[in-house]
Amino acid sequence: MAYSQSLNELVAALSKLPGIGRKSAQRIAYHLVTSDEEYVKNLSDAILNAKEKTHYCSVCNDMTEDEICPICASDKRDRSLICVVAEPKDVVAIEKTKEYKGLYHVLGGLISPMDGIGPNDISISKLIGRLNGEVKEVILATSLSVEGETTAMYIARMIAPLGVATSRIAKGIPAGSELEYADEATIANALEGRRKI
Amino acid sequence: MAYSQSLNELVAALSKLPGIGRKSAQRIAYHLVTSDEEYVKNLSDAILNAKEKTHYCSVCNDMTEDEICPICASDKRDRSLICVVAEPKDVVAIEKTKEYKGLYHVLGGLISPMDGIGPNDISISKLIGRLNGEVKEVILATSLSVEGETTAMYIARMIAPLGVATSRIAKGIPAGSELEYADEATIANALEGRRKI
Repeated sequence: MAYSQSLNELVAALSKLPGIGRKSAQRIAYHLVTSDEEYVKNLSDAILNAKEKTHYCSVCNDMTEDEICPICASDKRDRSLICVVAEPKDVVAIEKTKEYKGLYHVLGGLISPMDGIGPNDISISKLIGRLNGEVKEVILATSLSVEGETTAMYIARMIAPLGVATSRIAKGIPAGSELEYADEATIANALEGRRKI
Repeated sequence: MAYSQSLNELVAALSKLPGIGRKSAQRIAYHLVTSDEEYVKNLSDAILNAKEKTHYCSVCNDMTEDEICPICASDKRDRSLICVVAEPKDVVAIEKTKEYKGLYHVLGGLISPMDGIGPNDISISKLIGRLNGEVKEVILATSLSVEGETTAMYIARMIAPLGVATSRIAKGIPAGSELEYADEATIANALEGRRKI
């Protein structure tokens, strides 16, 4: 295993995946060359197949196999609500709660001057184009990082003149967690955002 | 991304890799479908190519692209020494030290009655078959786990009647580590294995 060229190439390709270091890549490569052929063929095909079939929904920018994603195409979703997120994986996270019945808009990133990403580099104008009268509220569900907050504030300011309500996801103590482990900013947010019971 | 079939299949295939949970698999899958086509094709090809070309060395059982691996085929290695390891990745680890110039023998596992793996399920008889008079010493470099120790002891007992010396890798304190963080068994081993300076 020390000198084989095809294995070295596989380790190099695997090392480029997010969260996979050189050791994990070696472990996976070794696992693959010792696995049965059918499984390896299946993985290789699944990679090509997913890459070939998946593209962006022409309405919301989520990843989909169709021209328009199943959420945008569904007649069971509340079309008066658009939830704005940074990435397709955020849609997955929110869908898992089974609480949200509105539509989505995937920005494909967050405004980040440090990384040279401005408002025109993410899908904001397309979002504005979707505010056609049917939409009553835009929920800004970008992360609570500096970039997420900046992006949410920017979009809220863009939408304000259009008479569509905007809201921001609540800041507070995570479910199941102890007050003593929360940082000051989180506790301050939780106090400020308190609601009558 | 929530409902696409090809993505679900890719996540399922990736989740079967060692050390990759569902979250990592989703992250990698999302990374792949948003990466450029050439990289994705390259990864898929590297997987198939490594699997197709790599097999076991007919002498030592290490993974190789040739009939006989470069170490077994080399005339620069000391043919009087065989270092016995559990897996091909152990060969990589030892080769990295650049200290060892002998040959290897890869067992392909360790004796583990709990997992139903007996002496006949790993490559012990093939190792015995290699002790042809040229070999003077067999270094047992299986891990210091129960399975590794059992396997080393078993092989040592098999080889004893053949008049070939056997040795076991040293047990002691890892390089650069503090005594206070070592467990009792490790300290006891380090004391017992002390050498004159």
